[in-house]
Amino acid sequence: MTKVLVEPIGVTVEVDGDSTLLSALKHPSVDGHSDCNGLGTCGKCLVRVGAGEVTPPTEIELRKLPADRLAQGWRLACQAKPRSARVSIEVRSTGGRRQIVTASKLHHGPYRPAVRREVVKLAPPTLDDARGDLQRVVDALPGADVPLRVLAELPLVLRRHQWSATFTRYGRRVVDVEAADAPSAFYGVAVDVGTSKIVAYLFDLHAGRRIDQEAVENPQIRFGEDVITRIAHASGDGLAEIAAAARQGINETLHALFRRQGIAPRHVYDMTIVGNTAMHHLVLGLPPEGLGQAPFAPVVDTPLLVRAAEIGIDINPEGGVYLPPPIAGFVGSDALAVIAATRLAGKRKPTIAIDIGTNTEIALVVDRHVIVTSCASGPAFEGYQITHGMKAVQGAIEKLRIGADGSPHGIRTIGDTPPVGLCGSGVVDLLAGLLKAGVVERSGRMVRHPRVRPGAEGVEYVVVERAEGDIVFTQHDVRQLQLAKGAIATGWSLLLASQGIAVGDIDRVYVAGAFGNYLDLTNAIAIGLLPPVDQARVAFVGNAAGVGAQMALIDVRARSRMARLRARTTFLELGAHKDFNAAFNGRLTLG
Amino acid sequence: MTKVLVEPIGVTVEVDGDSTLLSALKHPSVDGHSDCNGLGTCGKCLVRVGAGEVTPPTEIELRKLPADRLAQGWRLACQAKPRSARVSIEVRSTGGRRQIVTASKLHHGPYRPAVRREVVKLAPPTLDDARGDLQRVVDALPGADVPLRVLAELPLVLRRHQWSATFTRYGRRVVDVEAADAPSAFYGVAVDVGTSKIVAYLFDLHAGRRIDQEAVENPQIRFGEDVITRIAHASGDGLAEIAAAARQGINETLHALFRRQGIAPRHVYDMTIVGNTAMHHLVLGLPPEGLGQAPFAPVVDTPLLVRAAEIGIDINPEGGVYLPPPIAGFVGSDALAVIAATRLAGKRKPTIAIDIGTNTEIALVVDRHVIVTSCASGPAFEGYQITHGMKAVQGAIEKLRIGADGSPHGIRTIGDTPPVGLCGSGVVDLLAGLLKAGVVERSGRMVRHPRVRPGAEGVEYVVVERAEGDIVFTQHDVRQLQLAKGAIATGWSLLLASQGIAVGDIDRVYVAGAFGNYLDLTNAIAIGLLPPVDQARVAFVGNAAGVGAQMALIDVRARSRMARLRARTTFLELGAHKDFNAAFNGRLTLG
Repeated sequence: MTKVLVEPIGVTVEVDGDSTLLSALKHPSVDGHSDCNGLGTCGKCLVRVGAGEVTPPTEIELRKLPADRLAQGWRLACQAKPRSARVSIEVRSTGGRRQIVTASKLHHGPYRPAVRREVVKLAPPTLDDARGDLQRVVDALPGADVPLRVLAELPLVLRRHQWSATFTRYGRRVVDVEAADAPSAFYGVAVDVGTSKIVAYLFDLHAGRRIDQEAVENPQIRFGEDVITRIAHASGDGLAEIAAAARQGINETLHALFRRQGIAPRHVYDMTIVGNTAMHHLVLGLPPEGLGQAPFAPVVDTPLLVRAAEIGIDINPEGGVYLPPPIAGFVGSDALAVIAATRLAGKRKPTIAIDIGTNTEIALVVDRHVIVTSCASGPAFEGYQITHGMKAVQGAIEKLRIGADGSPHGIRTIGDTPPVGLCGSGVVDLLAGLLKAGVVERSGRMVRHPRVRPGAEGVEYVVVERAEGDIVFTQHDVRQLQLAKGAIATGWSLLLASQGIAVGDIDRVYVAGAFGNYLDLTNAIAIGLLPPVDQARVAFVGNAAGVGAQMALIDVRARSRMARLRARTTFLELGAHKDFNAAFNGRLTLG
Repeated sequence: MTKVLVEPIGVTVEVDGDSTLLSALKHPSVDGHSDCNGLGTCGKCLVRVGAGEVTPPTEIELRKLPADRLAQGWRLACQAKPRSARVSIEVRSTGGRRQIVTASKLHHGPYRPAVRREVVKLAPPTLDDARGDLQRVVDALPGADVPLRVLAELPLVLRRHQWSATFTRYGRRVVDVEAADAPSAFYGVAVDVGTSKIVAYLFDLHAGRRIDQEAVENPQIRFGEDVITRIAHASGDGLAEIAAAARQGINETLHALFRRQGIAPRHVYDMTIVGNTAMHHLVLGLPPEGLGQAPFAPVVDTPLLVRAAEIGIDINPEGGVYLPPPIAGFVGSDALAVIAATRLAGKRKPTIAIDIGTNTEIALVVDRHVIVTSCASGPAFEGYQITHGMKAVQGAIEKLRIGADGSPHGIRTIGDTPPVGLCGSGVVDLLAGLLKAGVVERSGRMVRHPRVRPGAEGVEYVVVERAEGDIVFTQHDVRQLQLAKGAIATGWSLLLASQGIAVGDIDRVYVAGAFGNYLDLTNAIAIGLLPPVDQARVAFVGNAAGVGAQMALIDVRARSRMARLRARTTFLELGAHKDFNAAFNGRLTLG
């Protein structure tokens, strides 16, 4: 038997020395995720091996994981077997308890889908009128463009149903033909492809109503956590593979939605996809090389409509997949979607929208002109690169207070289970509390305190004492958060400065993204992450990018509005800004 | 050892009892054809087992051959082994010596291809001009429509070649992007898909020059000789299979052409396909049910342009495949191509074009108005359904004379080898000669004559005496030819009558098709096959349908001309004609 310590959950599981690490993941208190039952095809049981010995990578792993990921210790749990009495692994995600934020307070707006249906009764051919079937359709539906796939189904449908048929059209294109009494509902899906998560919203386009949603981890994660690593992978031979992973993730959400709602893929005719520019390119299979180096020119910065079959999306193969335009190399169509969903361009007074993530986009509207910038904030606020950081899953500390004496109180975990780590909102609470109590100085230095002790990498603050090892917050963690916070604060401050706007002039701040949803606003302002405005002026709007994708799905007019919006949006390149370094150094200070 | 008699060649080959029948086909004096070396995948070694026993059909045959064909004794020689001391088989085709007529005296006319190339130098992106790659292309080539497949290649071509590139366009669509110094030639292929043969003409579209041609047997033959059988097969589950066979035949011609000329499929961007309406539908995978029953309405009777990838044609996947419109259910785009290639619509005086085949199309122009009809003439003039009839391959009697005494003279065979059977032109010479000598009466009755003897099926005329069995021409053969000739003559006579035109008014007769090329005109008129006009008014124009396909390939303007021509062409339905039966009975008489 081998003891496997599963981080960041902090659970130790005993497994048979002949089992793979997947058996540790399958333990009820870990409840890990695998779709392929250990065949090595789904890539979901990705773990990072820390202490201890395991068997060398199998052929499946060599094929599935890039060399640099293997070198960093990443493995497929279903392939690796323990080879020492103790092994520690770090898991990426656990069970179905993830809290992926799919909701938003924003509304998708009016309803006029790109898809419509018509029941048409045609005259049957006679010796005097032997027009071809296609000609009959074109005469009945002027301008109709019938692709070969539909044309091949047309004759039998017409002949078996007395020359009556239901035609489904996407603009001029006839995307489906069925018997006139075929089911009348038809569907569309709006997708937000994030670097870490893919969220899909299913709509009944007939009724104009959202009926379900589904979120999965982006399967591209096995090629790297961040956009830059994935661009590098795609720039080698990995493009087809990493593009296929993105599409696989989208299709996973679709399969779950269709199964749950009992929908045939054939009756899903439309999809919109938003994402950062790298995700946009990778879904389409476009080489992202240009995004990896100055001047960061995208391959496509115009709206694009492709057929589902062209990119292997499992809806009706003739269905449309519409991608609103990215704004720039590091400001994607997800940022455009946030601007559209928050109706930013319509605001009369200076308004800011911030979408916090590994890459943070910030948009400002002044006099109806939108300026947008982006900064590489890193994943610290998502729980990565923090010693006991973790994602917002069961056992994560999401709320806490620090008393005047510098000791923690009111620790609240997701699922009310014993704490195993700190998620983003918990980290912000902790940092703000320690700052107020004087345990951390504004410079970021951790001072002497009864709970501060020497650790493996400098001093550390003990958050929770546990038999299986304390949960700590280290000096290094503070530095990581300073960098992330500094990048974001530099973004909004330079953006404001570029337009001559003072913080006091800001009418409203929209905070989008999963992180914002659980954030304590006072604490976020206390550490200097958000501009110091009156709290009533701040609104957390959840997955606003998803709402923008929904707007484009259910209202074809929103597509041209978003394209015009992009044309009216100016991108401010921070890296090229003369004041960037000075501003960044200034913004490292907390508060 | 088993003796295998190979018909219609009349060669007996000894094979090992453990070998398949393919070893008989491979014998030098048979020189049969197989592409897959006995794997059972190419279907080319189709034989019909007559006398003798063979092993039962293998799984490969059960999959490859329709049940009705198997029931008729058709087998794959590579699968069947002899099980008796003597086996007789009938082969479909032999060796590479086939005479498929690909030439024509007609010319394809002026030159303006649908494809064009442009070398464009773009401005590289800078921080001040970070337009997307696609936008740069659209700005340089206004209206350019770049499909995803090309878009995915664009970034690397531009970045590796200093932002210069060669763009190949098909109308507005950019079908290829390559380095600016890429090879400048580009190609197109015109294809005539016949019921029995597929002929492809390769053009250098850059130079406007035909460079090669290739012909193969239509692989659909394994599903039946004639169009009606194939329509029936496709109307069951066989559509995908029979469509794939047509495309496989086209691709075979392409592979041969590309290999011989050293051309990359990527550089072939355009194709035109003409054929009868059933072939047109089957190449596209469109259900031909409607063609099998009155009112014979086609699925498509308008021009169609699809992408090569849509129908699995092995040229550049973004290349175009253009199909001129069929005229009616039994008058295809091949007939339209003949009308276009003979410039029929431009004639001031009454002119007829006849394309003789299993289905014979006849077009008449009067006062610049074209009327076309079609008749099911059957394959008798192609050597089928005639006791010793055979295709125009080595050993076929193609010319002969009958002396005043009723005996044959001046027998000429293809390849000057000993005679093994009669091809179409030989049959016409024979019938006309016997008619003139009085051995066959105008009613078709064979009279007493030293060379006429009782045979297995009534009386028969001995054409050649041979040790391995005489070559004979039977009373039944005469009846078959009367039916075929009757159908064709009814066609042109009713067509003329419908417009009040007498035979004497005809200015010119164009005879198209393989059969016409070797035909003795005097004899063809003598038996009443062609209208009795002055011989100087008759022109054999060879594969005029192929010329029409070439016109549409090399001159994009010819496509709209042909579409207009179709609109101006009236189809005369003979089956519905009140005088049809009377005329047909009258026309059975020879001469």
